[in-house]
Amino acid sequence: MSASASSSSPSPVLPDKQLQQVDNVLSGTEDEHGGVIVEMSKEPMDPVIFTSLLKASMLHWKQQGKRGIWIKLPIELVSLIEPVVKEGFSYHHAEPKHLMLVHWIPETTNTLPANASHRVGIGAFVMTEKGEVLVVQEKSGKFQGSGIWKFPTGVVDEGEDICDAAVREVKEETGIDTKFVEILAFRQSHKSFFEKSDLFFMCMLKPVSFNIQKQEREIEAAQWMAFEEYAAQEFVQKHDLLKYMAKICIAKREEKYSGFSAVPTITSFSKKQSNLYFNTNDLNSS
Amino acid sequence: MSASASSSSPSPVLPDKQLQQVDNVLSGTEDEHGGVIVEMSKEPMDPVIFTSLLKASMLHWKQQGKRGIWIKLPIELVSLIEPVVKEGFSYHHAEPKHLMLVHWIPETTNTLPANASHRVGIGAFVMTEKGEVLVVQEKSGKFQGSGIWKFPTGVVDEGEDICDAAVREVKEETGIDTKFVEILAFRQSHKSFFEKSDLFFMCMLKPVSFNIQKQEREIEAAQWMAFEEYAAQEFVQKHDLLKYMAKICIAKREEKYSGFSAVPTITSFSKKQSNLYFNTNDLNSS
Repeated sequence: MSASASSSSPSPVLPDKQLQQVDNVLSGTEDEHGGVIVEMSKEPMDPVIFTSLLKASMLHWKQQGKRGIWIKLPIELVSLIEPVVKEGFSYHHAEPKHLMLVHWIPETTNTLPANASHRVGIGAFVMTEKGEVLVVQEKSGKFQGSGIWKFPTGVVDEGEDICDAAVREVKEETGIDTKFVEILAFRQSHKSFFEKSDLFFMCMLKPVSFNIQKQEREIEAAQWMAFEEYAAQEFVQKHDLLKYMAKICIAKREEKYSGFSAVPTITSFSKKQSNLYFNTNDLNSS
Repeated sequence: MSASASSSSPSPVLPDKQLQQVDNVLSGTEDEHGGVIVEMSKEPMDPVIFTSLLKASMLHWKQQGKRGIWIKLPIELVSLIEPVVKEGFSYHHAEPKHLMLVHWIPETTNTLPANASHRVGIGAFVMTEKGEVLVVQEKSGKFQGSGIWKFPTGVVDEGEDICDAAVREVKEETGIDTKFVEILAFRQSHKSFFEKSDLFFMCMLKPVSFNIQKQEREIEAAQWMAFEEYAAQEFVQKHDLLKYMAKICIAKREEKYSGFSAVPTITSFSKKQSNLYFNTNDLNSS
């Protein structure tokens, strides 16, 4: 929806004065927690006019007993941030092209939902039936030029399933097609990037093609390597996490380890599909 | 560090003119990816003076071959956002009291790290040896007034370990002390809040105290309930995720299910401790 000087609710028949008052507020949608969400369009708006609309809107929302007020400003309307902050709003979150501000009206404790706190990454353990694993050397980053062979890794995109991200990253970096098997382990680490935390999921994938075509931009080299050769690297032996991962991979190869598989589920109230990851081996045999 | 009109690097002996030029840039720290991070202090700064400093800084950083330029503005300096955006910066992320902007200088593909994409929540399965589970009714939210008994749930705080968050939430909501056992399952869902995704970890905890003292603010009621009574609720039976969870809990009770335990690991290069979650049962017996 775009911001305009129209009512935020269906207008009943009202005396002129009151109608006038309701007309001069920012339009928004109501959320299920007594809040109002105003999404401004990119069309330029004079900060003075906006400020007066915002002040009238705040009064209106207070009278209506509203709680959290959300204002989403596209980067084109950067000049409107200052008036919003002056009305007592804080930042909530930002994406490259917009900023979301929020203000909690009541005197009671703020129950606004927190901002996203974690980035999510994946590592891919891709092993052939002969026990060869898919490894790469990266062109940039910490291990550039080190000669270290590592599993393909990457970041889960916005709205992407972890299991899909693993398949995509392997394809992008090496050209290999795979099928997701399960999550073998995951790690949570903090302050990985400014104040944000990180969740890294180690995925096992089954290769369904074998002819490597490495990506030129990020990947220096890619190959199939005997698992023992990968695990014998000093880098793997010195690194707690990688040593555990190597042990898990060996147990997995011997079919003595169950990770978490992805099972699509539907939430009955939201009707949305989402993956539940759990130990299906144990559940099915219990 | 605070922003000031000083050099961003140690000053060698330079001719006056060049020194003057280097002196008039924003001070920042260099990151390991060829970037510069400028953290502005809260002290007021005139937007005109800031704009001229910023323009000189950009020129300087370009000449130095810098790549990503990060500017962190506290909310007190809201008036400086517009000049930064006009220099070509985008928003990267925001927290209540600051906004981080970023600009990628080179012509090459932007390799800036993504913003945090997921919120992380926990659910707590706390069961006594007699097979009673800890359940609550919440004062607000979707199930307010519905009479539904659910497991305690909550949001993982910034910088908090998942296993600690589960123990904290149970203590806060019910007064019960617990010990983290393992993660039984987790769910990834999308667009749970604006464009952000959600990771929800179902944790098993062992109670070490039994006297319930419910939190007044959020919790309507809390009690120990026979697991069968919890699982028989229509709400649990109709909800895919909860039905799976109930099955997992039954398998767990019969000691026929292994989830992921938390094992502290140290990253050899960063020296930071982080938890690795995996199936320790299978690994230890393999």
